[in-house]
Amino acid sequence: MASNDTHTASVGIVRPQIARFTDPLKLRGGSVLREYELVYETYGRLNAGRSNAVLVCHALNASHHVAGYYEDSDNTGWWDNMIGPGKPLDTDHFFVIGVNNLGGCHGSTGPSSINPDTGKPWGGDFPVVTVEDWVDAQARLADHLGIGCFAAVMGGSLGAMQALAWTIRYPDRLRHSIVIACAPNLSAQNIAFNEVARQAIITDPDFHGGAYQLQGTAPKRGLRVARMVGHITYLSDDEMASKFGRQLKHGKPGYTFDTEFQIESYLRHQANKFADYFDANTYLRITKALDYFDPAFACGGELSAALKDVSAGILVVSFTTDWRFSPERSREIVRALLDNRARVTYAEIDAPHGHDAFLLEDPRYHRLVAAYFNRVAAEIRP
Amino acid sequence: MASNDTHTASVGIVRPQIARFTDPLKLRGGSVLREYELVYETYGRLNAGRSNAVLVCHALNASHHVAGYYEDSDNTGWWDNMIGPGKPLDTDHFFVIGVNNLGGCHGSTGPSSINPDTGKPWGGDFPVVTVEDWVDAQARLADHLGIGCFAAVMGGSLGAMQALAWTIRYPDRLRHSIVIACAPNLSAQNIAFNEVARQAIITDPDFHGGAYQLQGTAPKRGLRVARMVGHITYLSDDEMASKFGRQLKHGKPGYTFDTEFQIESYLRHQANKFADYFDANTYLRITKALDYFDPAFACGGELSAALKDVSAGILVVSFTTDWRFSPERSREIVRALLDNRARVTYAEIDAPHGHDAFLLEDPRYHRLVAAYFNRVAAEIRP
Repeated sequence: MASNDTHTASVGIVRPQIARFTDPLKLRGGSVLREYELVYETYGRLNAGRSNAVLVCHALNASHHVAGYYEDSDNTGWWDNMIGPGKPLDTDHFFVIGVNNLGGCHGSTGPSSINPDTGKPWGGDFPVVTVEDWVDAQARLADHLGIGCFAAVMGGSLGAMQALAWTIRYPDRLRHSIVIACAPNLSAQNIAFNEVARQAIITDPDFHGGAYQLQGTAPKRGLRVARMVGHITYLSDDEMASKFGRQLKHGKPGYTFDTEFQIESYLRHQANKFADYFDANTYLRITKALDYFDPAFACGGELSAALKDVSAGILVVSFTTDWRFSPERSREIVRALLDNRARVTYAEIDAPHGHDAFLLEDPRYHRLVAAYFNRVAAEIRP
Repeated sequence: MASNDTHTASVGIVRPQIARFTDPLKLRGGSVLREYELVYETYGRLNAGRSNAVLVCHALNASHHVAGYYEDSDNTGWWDNMIGPGKPLDTDHFFVIGVNNLGGCHGSTGPSSINPDTGKPWGGDFPVVTVEDWVDAQARLADHLGIGCFAAVMGGSLGAMQALAWTIRYPDRLRHSIVIACAPNLSAQNIAFNEVARQAIITDPDFHGGAYQLQGTAPKRGLRVARMVGHITYLSDDEMASKFGRQLKHGKPGYTFDTEFQIESYLRHQANKFADYFDANTYLRITKALDYFDPAFACGGELSAALKDVSAGILVVSFTTDWRFSPERSREIVRALLDNRARVTYAEIDAPHGHDAFLLEDPRYHRLVAAYFNRVAAEIRP
């Protein structure tokens, strides 16, 4: 499967599209979005039977721009190594959809959008959104595109939570779910890291209770700190050690508060880049969506009970050095699926990169996903 | 050893003392402290041979107040479970000294002290201090107290780094070193967490380049975030899970930005408490001291070479669930000591509490330390 031209094959130039919805969407938190837009991209062709569509859900800071590149920039999609002609999710066989989630900051309705009730940006008034709300909105996008049943829904990390939620919420609307680097819910430690990020943002004096857009400012200091915390949890300790170790920027210690270690430079650079393009209100909402995700909660903590109606085939993939969502957490999902005699395939990939491994081009990982999609493709009735 | 009255035995009411030094102290970073004060406490009695003194070095947020309590408050010393009559470090046998390190905020000369050159608080101008600088100042305190050679120097975490540095810097001035929950240097991940804490403080608009005291303010927002990050690394994932798990404050999710999970309340509470008593400039300097500690650096990264002159007996203790300074890091120290045929005892304590375990009263841990101090006591010539 992994041919030599995997690295160059691309879906090519892509263009985002917008779908507008005027049917009110009731959110889990109780509020209602009267109308909203979703920005999305598609790659490959929908077959006549409308049976080859794959929905790819994004994680924390990604977007609908999953593969290919834009005409006017070299901005490559965040999972371009996974999706394209001849790639593990092969656009010669599948019609792939990427969508920016509600509350996002890449074009779908979110805190920076205009609140139709006030004519001003939503800001801090934009409601809390959950994984289930996102899945509901994605189902409406599927309706809009005339897709009754996905061949697969796929995601990594928070994206995988959506892929898992699809199996519970719309069991008849997907045939497979691909759940990569996931957990059935956040641990106390995961929530704690999210809370640090939120506090950094909320206590930034430029936050203004979320109404910073109206003040012509943005809580960039807080967003930088939030990103630094997050970034640490995406990499494994070993990966950081081998990439940066204790390397000093100037070869020897200066005993000042200037940047001394390469790891400090790297984090500051990542933080600055992130704060320049990401929206703080979106970041807050995405961390809350992560915190709240817990399908077992409604079943008294019994994940098996929560997954009892799953009919999709499920591929669960974890990475050995992922300490954000460790293999042990993925195995909780697998065990609960096995309790229900679900069709589950589980693989633990020995990879050094930590949580971020799901985004990287590891041959064993990609061969595994490619093989799974081969099976999915074989089932498709054109 | 661990008798039933261990829990109640206390050194009783204690009073801090101040030692003033007018001999200039050259710091590793190049600057010179012309004069300085160290605040310290002592427990037990120095014997006639001056051979039963034990120095206890503190970690990040602790102080000279190691054991006992103050007359006018119920403020108990931070290692009171370890030190007292009949306790592992038995004040019936040993003369114990606790000292607040230079750059601290509990009475020793630090950023809040008056800079004699300007007549104003040092603030951001207080120099960077290192573990070695602290050890040098502690050696002067030993001179001041007429102690030529310690029976032992002891510490946990950053305190253990000082206990280790003593064996390198003053090999003839201690007979034993007790190195608990330590690492031979910080990993890239450790430095990364420190850098998050520093950025949170430094980018707080109330920081004023460290001169906040003159502005009548303090960067409490940043200090809170710094403390939250630190706190996460002190506890194990499992300990957080068993203490807080996903417990909701109000039993069910509210889908708002109010505190939802117990772990959030806990972190916020700890952060507020800390920001009310701790100084941000001190916090910055202590994290830098941690980052810089690396005895092997001067020997081309060879820890064995750095420890070649060690003559003290050394007890190294680690805790299985400590992910800040994992047992693997302690074993690096042990291996380097064994390379030098040093007298080393190593114990890995199976404890669920993470890094904080070194402060807790675990019977196996305390019995081990007690047994080691029995041996130290047996060697003492009164």
